Amino acid sequence: MTLNIGVIGTGAIGREHIRRLSHTLLGSRVVAVTDINADQAARVVQELGITAEVYADGHALIAAADVQAVLVASWGPTHEEYVLAAIAAGKPVFCEKPLATTAEGCRRIVEAEQAHGKRLVQVGFMRPYDAGYRQLKAVVDADRIGAPLMIHAAHRNPTVSEHYSTDMAITDTLIHEINVLAWLLDDHYVSAQVVFPRKAPAAREHLRDPQVVLLETAKGVRIDVEVFVNCQYGYDIQCEIVGERGIARLPEPTSVQLRSEARLSNEILMDWKDRFIAAYDVELQAFIDDLAAGQLTGPSSWDGYIAAVTADACIKAQDSGAIEPVTLPSRPAFYA
Amino acid sequence: MTLNIGVIGTGAIGREHIRRLSHTLLGSRVVAVTDINADQAARVVQELGITAEVYADGHALIAAADVQAVLVASWGPTHEEYVLAAIAAGKPVFCEKPLATTAEGCRRIVEAEQAHGKRLVQVGFMRPYDAGYRQLKAVVDADRIGAPLMIHAAHRNPTVSEHYSTDMAITDTLIHEINVLAWLLDDHYVSAQVVFPRKAPAAREHLRDPQVVLLETAKGVRIDVEVFVNCQYGYDIQCEIVGERGIARLPEPTSVQLRSEARLSNEILMDWKDRFIAAYDVELQAFIDDLAAGQLTGPSSWDGYIAAVTADACIKAQDSGAIEPVTLPSRPAFYA
Amino acid sequence: MTLNIGVIGTGAIGREHIRRLSHTLLGSRVVAVTDINADQAARVVQELGITAEVYADGHALIAAADVQAVLVASWGPTHEEYVLAAIAAGKPVFCEKPLATTAEGCRRIVEAEQAHGKRLVQVGFMRPYDAGYRQLKAVVDADRIGAPLMIHAAHRNPTVSEHYSTDMAITDTLIHEINVLAWLLDDHYVSAQVVFPRKAPAAREHLRDPQVVLLETAKGVRIDVEVFVNCQYGYDIQCEIVGERGIARLPEPTSVQLRSEARLSNEILMDWKDRFIAAYDVELQAFIDDLAAGQLTGPSSWDGYIAAVTADACIKAQDSGAIEPVTLPSRPAFYA
Amino acid sequence: MTLNIGVIGTGAIGREHIRRLSHTLLGSRVVAVTDINADQAARVVQELGITAEVYADGHALIAAADVQAVLVASWGPTHEEYVLAAIAAGKPVFCEKPLATTAEGCRRIVEAEQAHGKRLVQVGFMRPYDAGYRQLKAVVDADRIGAPLMIHAAHRNPTVSEHYSTDMAITDTLIHEINVLAWLLDDHYVSAQVVFPRKAPAAREHLRDPQVVLLETAKGVRIDVEVFVNCQYGYDIQCEIVGERGIARLPEPTSVQLRSEARLSNEILMDWKDRFIAAYDVELQAFIDDLAAGQLTGPSSWDGYIAAVTADACIKAQDSGAIEPVTLPSRPAFYA
Repeated sequence: MTLNIGVIGTGAIGREHIRRLSHTLLGSRVVAVTDINADQAARVVQELGITAEVYADGHALIAAADVQAVLVASWGPTHEEYVLAAIAAGKPVFCEKPLATTAEGCRRIVEAEQAHGKRLVQVGFMRPYDAGYRQLKAVVDADRIGAPLMIHAAHRNPTVSEHYSTDMAITDTLIHEINVLAWLLDDHYVSAQVVFPRKAPAAREHLRDPQVVLLETAKGVRIDVEVFVNCQYGYDIQCEIVGERGIARLPEPTSVQLRSEARLSNEILMDWKDRFIAAYDVELQAFIDDLAAGQLTGPSSWDGYIAAVTADACIKAQDSGAIEPVTLPSRPAFYA
Repeated sequence: MTLNIGVIGTGAIGREHIRRLSHTLLGSRVVAVTDINADQAARVVQELGITAEVYADGHALIAAADVQAVLVASWGPTHEEYVLAAIAAGKPVFCEKPLATTAEGCRRIVEAEQAHGKRLVQVGFMRPYDAGYRQLKAVVDADRIGAPLMIHAAHRNPTVSEHYSTDMAITDTLIHEINVLAWLLDDHYVSAQVVFPRKAPAAREHLRDPQVVLLETAKGVRIDVEVFVNCQYGYDIQCEIVGERGIARLPEPTSVQLRSEARLSNEILMDWKDRFIAAYDVELQAFIDDLAAGQLTGPSSWDGYIAAVTADACIKAQDSGAIEPVTLPSRPAFYA
Repeated sequence: MTLNIGVIGTGAIGREHIRRLSHTLLGSRVVAVTDINADQAARVVQELGITAEVYADGHALIAAADVQAVLVASWGPTHEEYVLAAIAAGKPVFCEKPLATTAEGCRRIVEAEQAHGKRLVQVGFMRPYDAGYRQLKAVVDADRIGAPLMIHAAHRNPTVSEHYSTDMAITDTLIHEINVLAWLLDDHYVSAQVVFPRKAPAAREHLRDPQVVLLETAKGVRIDVEVFVNCQYGYDIQCEIVGERGIARLPEPTSVQLRSEARLSNEILMDWKDRFIAAYDVELQAFIDDLAAGQLTGPSSWDGYIAAVTADACIKAQDSGAIEPVTLPSRPAFYA
Repeated sequence: MTLNIGVIGTGAIGREHIRRLSHTLLGSRVVAVTDINADQAARVVQELGITAEVYADGHALIAAADVQAVLVASWGPTHEEYVLAAIAAGKPVFCEKPLATTAEGCRRIVEAEQAHGKRLVQVGFMRPYDAGYRQLKAVVDADRIGAPLMIHAAHRNPTVSEHYSTDMAITDTLIHEINVLAWLLDDHYVSAQVVFPRKAPAAREHLRDPQVVLLETAKGVRIDVEVFVNCQYGYDIQCEIVGERGIARLPEPTSVQLRSEARLSNEILMDWKDRFIAAYDVELQAFIDDLAAGQLTGPSSWDGYIAAVTADACIKAQDSGAIEPVTLPSRPAFYA
């Protein structure tokens, strides 16, 4: 039993997902694609050697009779529209982050999905599918360290492109921690604060980098996340959970230990694409398997909504320097 | 394009491979099974929910028109017979270790395969498919430590069953190191020696455990492998390659670092089945993909032959206490 | 050439210093002691087998002709008085922390010392004498990671006594980080903030524990220090300096790596006395050697003053929940 | 109470010991020195700022009335003569390794010392005074891993001087492992074997390097020691004890963990002098303290004898390629 998927957006990440759905995962097939650049969409179909119709736009693709599920990987500002259209068509949709560019947009999706009466949306947060984070959550859930009290985390990139701005440190970078830490803790945020150390010399003039984001959760966990996107030395993701009677730390990516040149060393990855590559496979396979089993269990539109509201508070905190509240309605039973 | 596979032997490992080929891997389907216990074979087919004919014996299965490739997972003494039959039928065959119970049997397979004119046989040595060993080989092949001069390795089990005998430390345990170290070094063995430390108190009366096996390769690499199958504390596989200007060490399995109860600790696996579980998937997927691409590249019958000859020398060395030669013909171009 | 030292206070830490000065270090001798409990002082003299006069009080001891230097290890509220007396007598004085119980008291000492015209005071901050911190500072000073931008630190005790109060987390615990981080960075603090996670269940009713202290330095370094004095699992001191292009981490105390009971583990100390034991020897030996060389170089009364002012701001921040300024005059050339 | 020491030999190591005895350790004073180069001896006295008489030769020094103990740091072939003279004079003697250049010479010292009736000799094996080895022994002695069954060890130097020969890998390098492993295990050796891997390209023409030495102890422990003195990457001492139910590993020297340049790394020492520098202080302080307490407890002349006999067997094994017996009389009660 193979799931027929239509993919909206055939750029870098869309193309990669098409390859994955066609050649790596079990139980899926890409039967429809579309892109704002139709030629590019056709080229991807050809290059990947698949049989898929190229549609004029996302709405036509969603409407196509043989499309059973939709994957949205187009430009961020178009996400909300396509996700809402998929819900309207009653078709499951996997939407790359952001779910919508505003918290308000996320709220509309959450409401539409609830009105539909059954979960249809999975948001492309892949960290909960990373083997290391899953081991970390297993340790916490097995009560090996007691209940969590604090998290110390870091998200570091060697460098970023010129167009990367200070608020993107929240919306493109921290957004992953916002999601995965809430998932680790089974919790959500009530306040946010941002402090700026002296600026790193490698950061471009318009960018304040690094920054430290302080989050507080509903259960009273205090979180500090260092975001440093010009750290030079590597793509480095750190996460340490301090519990009532012990501490658990996210594993480093596996690498060969070397003794050479007066150093005992392990390699640190330089490219973020290498870090979570396996998690993308697991994430989409879970989406396919969950649909086959009749129930989505991955990151929901509610998780997308939490992330959007929290990110808004963080951006406000960047400007104000103050502790900003994160105001969220309580989680509907629908998303329990 | 799906490969139709027939599986001979539906015991623990056979059943696991059938599950893998049916539900986890891409491009394969199990269409035929057989077992000395026909009821058991039928039950496996039913429990795994697959559509596969149950054959009376391995020869009937090999002869079946829709069987494109054979997987041998039956009792060791039957392997040679089925592999030879598959070669005679011109069908690719994946044979769990041992390829044959004697070096002579392996030689017969090697000769039959060469007479056939094209590689048909892959032996079930899975370590070369383990991510850690692949990283280790990549480091060596990239000349990060210079040419290898020595290897220090260990193969430890917490405990073994009552029927485990001193020579099984070679044929069931060390056999993996014999294979993977030759693969890491692209080399083969010229002598073997075994020394026995004082016996571990946990070892049963009939078993000499631990033992240290010393191997010498054609290129002059010296290897020591500690085999200790009653070490109590874990299933622990260690491998350190000493090169001309550096040392590379096999990564430990990934685990969460804990600070708790006055210890900074990482978990060590207790069950060997957890250690190389992912490697089995990679190994069989490679077999399927290689067949689709028209050329087997995994562990060959020659590798099975090397392992058998080397194991024989090790067993002789257990008894003699002397340095025993490992006498191998040079590798035929066919297996280059 | 042996330095004759008088020790004020022969309780636990005083007695330990007397032992050290008499039997472990080079170039010192304890010739005078005093304690509010005169019998106890006499007993210490006898038990340690030294020849030292027991004085009625600290002032008599300071005045004694054969006392060349004074060590103050009495009850905290008496420190200021004795340090001022030693300065008045023109005698060098090593004062256990706190230098004075108020910032105002520290300021008076700073002024008296400057009026005297030459450094006479060393404060008993021992972390800068710990081998690990010295290695860490050497790495930073050698520009191995670029200029520091952030520090992530933790100070954890397994448990504390009943009388330990929330503000003691600053004055008794964090005070070491306040000192050593300023020394590591060659910097001082400009603001402080404290956030309280959900309380640890092991903390007594009157104690808010853990807490996270956020410090900002004059050079713009941002520091977070987790203070958790009921962490159960160990006495654990962590310090990670994030520089412009790399990160340096305080070494863990040396211990044997064990593979046992399904764990790869290193011991974590449970008792703080074991952690910095060697640093006390180095600290006092440096005091003796510096006096012999004619110039004190260790933690100065100005460092004591910085610590007191910073601690005051932290305690205010505990109550206010706000970001509190740390207001310090600029460092006099005298203490450069 | 200060011990008056006479030092024979004021070359590199002798000078360093004089500095240590004069300026670092407690309870000792160098009152007499001698060297084959009398000018050099006088210069050392002057440069180190000590008051010591320069004697014409070692015998005059040993005879001097104010010399209470002797330290022998002269050329190896002279050791036996001076140690015997010190015993004849009834004076304690600390002798740098080797105790004598032949096993026969060591035996003569052992006999002379026993005839004297009280231990007078300590041999300069410093590894048992290294903090890491002491931690390792404490773990074993506390029965944390069960009784030892095997040891895997390595002794690696980045490079050696031109005059370093294949047998010096035993007498100058392995000799430390011969001593420290016997001490760790409270055991001695019964056989030795040496195997030579392919030669490292950095090794000079006349030198066979690396080599693996296999030792067997009286209690049945099997030991492999890799000796590799052209390993390029560092001075690296490894020791792993495999016990009945766990494994203990010698700690690495303390160093700052760095994240920089795509590496998570710790420094490896390049110079052997940095590795055991602290152990030399501890070793000589123990000699002084033991004499004050009236009983030597450090490495004895018997330990020197064991080392010499074992080294002889190893050198024989280098040539023969065979398993060579190590024949030792049983340990006299005198050295229990």
